Amino acid sequence: MVIPSNWYNIVPDLPAPPPPPLHPGTREPVGPGDLAPLFPMELIGQEVSGERYVPIPQEVLDVYRLWRPTPLIRARRLERALGTPARIYYKYEGVSPAGSHKANTAVPQAYYNAKEGVRLLTTETGAGQWGSALAFACSQFDVECQIWMVRASYDQKPYRRSLMHVYGATVHASPSSLTGSGSKALADDPASPGSLGIAISEAVEVAAATPDARYALGSVLNHVLMHQTVIGEEALDQLPELPDLVIGCTGGGSNFAGLAFPFMREKLAGRIKTVFRAVEPAACPSFTRGVYAYDFGDTAGLTPLLKMHTLGHTFVPDPIHAGGLRYHGMSPLLSHMYELGLFEAVTRSQNECFEAGVRFARTEGIVPAPEPTHALAETIAEALRCKESGEEKVILTALCGHGHFDLGAYDRYLAGGLEDHTLPQDRIEQALTELPG
Amino acid sequence: MVIPSNWYNIVPDLPAPPPPPLHPGTREPVGPGDLAPLFPMELIGQEVSGERYVPIPQEVLDVYRLWRPTPLIRARRLERALGTPARIYYKYEGVSPAGSHKANTAVPQAYYNAKEGVRLLTTETGAGQWGSALAFACSQFDVECQIWMVRASYDQKPYRRSLMHVYGATVHASPSSLTGSGSKALADDPASPGSLGIAISEAVEVAAATPDARYALGSVLNHVLMHQTVIGEEALDQLPELPDLVIGCTGGGSNFAGLAFPFMREKLAGRIKTVFRAVEPAACPSFTRGVYAYDFGDTAGLTPLLKMHTLGHTFVPDPIHAGGLRYHGMSPLLSHMYELGLFEAVTRSQNECFEAGVRFARTEGIVPAPEPTHALAETIAEALRCKESGEEKVILTALCGHGHFDLGAYDRYLAGGLEDHTLPQDRIEQALTELPG
Repeated sequence: MVIPSNWYNIVPDLPAPPPPPLHPGTREPVGPGDLAPLFPMELIGQEVSGERYVPIPQEVLDVYRLWRPTPLIRARRLERALGTPARIYYKYEGVSPAGSHKANTAVPQAYYNAKEGVRLLTTETGAGQWGSALAFACSQFDVECQIWMVRASYDQKPYRRSLMHVYGATVHASPSSLTGSGSKALADDPASPGSLGIAISEAVEVAAATPDARYALGSVLNHVLMHQTVIGEEALDQLPELPDLVIGCTGGGSNFAGLAFPFMREKLAGRIKTVFRAVEPAACPSFTRGVYAYDFGDTAGLTPLLKMHTLGHTFVPDPIHAGGLRYHGMSPLLSHMYELGLFEAVTRSQNECFEAGVRFARTEGIVPAPEPTHALAETIAEALRCKESGEEKVILTALCGHGHFDLGAYDRYLAGGLEDHTLPQDRIEQALTELPG
Repeated sequence: MVIPSNWYNIVPDLPAPPPPPLHPGTREPVGPGDLAPLFPMELIGQEVSGERYVPIPQEVLDVYRLWRPTPLIRARRLERALGTPARIYYKYEGVSPAGSHKANTAVPQAYYNAKEGVRLLTTETGAGQWGSALAFACSQFDVECQIWMVRASYDQKPYRRSLMHVYGATVHASPSSLTGSGSKALADDPASPGSLGIAISEAVEVAAATPDARYALGSVLNHVLMHQTVIGEEALDQLPELPDLVIGCTGGGSNFAGLAFPFMREKLAGRIKTVFRAVEPAACPSFTRGVYAYDFGDTAGLTPLLKMHTLGHTFVPDPIHAGGLRYHGMSPLLSHMYELGLFEAVTRSQNECFEAGVRFARTEGIVPAPEPTHALAETIAEALRCKESGEEKVILTALCGHGHFDLGAYDRYLAGGLEDHTLPQDRIEQALTELPG
């Protein structure tokens, strides 16, 4: 088993190209010049690339080698506990240094920036998975890393913050007084718990205003999804049999895309008949209850307009939602593919997700991060359907990270303190009234 | 690469047998009957076995398979950062469900107990590595698990506690009012922060008094060390070249023994010339500054007398010591082998250990637990000696766990808050006056 030597770009294999991002003022497609203050040219090129394969640079492979190839494991003990005839495989990305799939794109992003002379990368982080992956990647290429971490997480997840410090990054609680947008948020509410939207604005503002600085994003964009395809390419190579069903959780979409795209290539070419299923939280259901429309990627409206499934850029999930995947929008590329009917989408509530996480830990050992418990809840439900029908379905799922930094949420679940509720339709409709244009 | 099918018992290969444990009253060697209230017969048999190889049961292999074989990685990025001609390999045990090598013995201990009809296993845990490994193992064999966790850790490491809960274990802060010894400790000091000694007494007391209950220990004993030899057997198989030097940290000794014993077998048979080096904290230096004498394994004096390198069973490291490996004694088997001259021992101070941990994280990605940073500090020092001498030494080290639950200590190190000091000789001498008999 070896690490793939190329990333796979699914765009040229699609029956129709995805709609381009638009400039919010002119409503014209954005060009490379619009993105140059934020991203290095190599990544801008990958974002719009028409090549099916992009070679992975040797310098990136040398870092991937620290944890790749990742394990592909048959969940025999879970199968036995469920009494299912289904065969369940999981691809485990939690072996990466910061514990999730995010390192697969953090490393090339840090590398291309370093290669183009960038000395500082800025980013935002919510729970801290992306921030710690980028901090690790920057430590490998001697790039300074500054991270705006949502204040509520900064206070509640000190260990994620410590992990970024160990990798040498600077972590600011957001909103901070270091930026205009942070200062404004603090003026509005000195006790603001922060939000991803504010943190993005702060990181973007500093990157745009600092010489030799750029900004890095951990999901949503085409080049990010492409970097994640190492997951699916490895799984294709490792699986002893072809999957009937591939299941992954979706927040911005990079984890699901990373596992699914190489299998979708095989399906688009008529070589396999696999079904694909995205799982999102009932508390933040952009595929299943959002609209497909042009919207901003951030709350403050600083980004280009992206055509995507969105709950409205002002939508924020209820604070009772503990399970990650809190993004209001969705990868434009995946949104386009969903419209093309290339995969299904379902939702799961947080208590059934944590129940699946505990069940998985007690059979397979690994405590999953809250995000992949969504995929596990769906996988278990499917395996139990197979138990009823007797079908020997082959299921492949993405276990994109471990839950060592999320045990507070497990604690609350085990103490019976997590709530499920159905998101009221009027909250979605309210947020959708604020769509641009 | 496959998982070994046998554990290796080094005892029959030694030039002389280790001295037996003695009954503290009679000073006669303890027999199986003395141990039966605490351990299942299969483990008592392994403790005194004269067989060189003990087959690993299929049921244990089926669980080992969740994370074994573990990776053997060449630390190329660390080598490059150090500019050393040495070649550094590390065997990484942090991929186990609870994140350390402890699962290698927790699984067979839970298995043999379950097989002999035991329904409850009790144990103590300090930092939580052992407790969480046993909780995981018990979840695999439907054995109830009750853990007495030192109060100070219970309060300061809530995530370790949560991890045990996820695996279904019950965790008591020790001292607890559930036992006689706990109640006595609480009567003496209602605000007692607890100690490993008290926690052992509580776990032993409950195991001895409860039908179908037994006690489990995570290091020190012969059968525990033997279970860990899967580490070294795999490494022997995985290494592309023979090591000149094997380095491991020692607290109770099971991690060092697990990696070193299979290589020592090869050396005792004259097939290799490897040098072995144990590394202990300057704050708890049992090999290098203790005496070789019969002493109790616990603070309260409930265990048989063990001949070992000890600082005295009343010795407690300074509270400023953050780096794990706090046991006053040492494995009797390793102590005997040290007297036979089969390996070297050195000490490292905690600031140089955490410095090595950060250096390792920023080059190899993994944040090590505080315990293996002792071995990493020694490995780095050796590699820098090679840089001066030009020697292309092959170094193998044991990276026995990750530091995801120890980031508080890294925080304090990065903030400059860790202290080093030399342990005063009179503190050791004072503790040694309390040796039994």
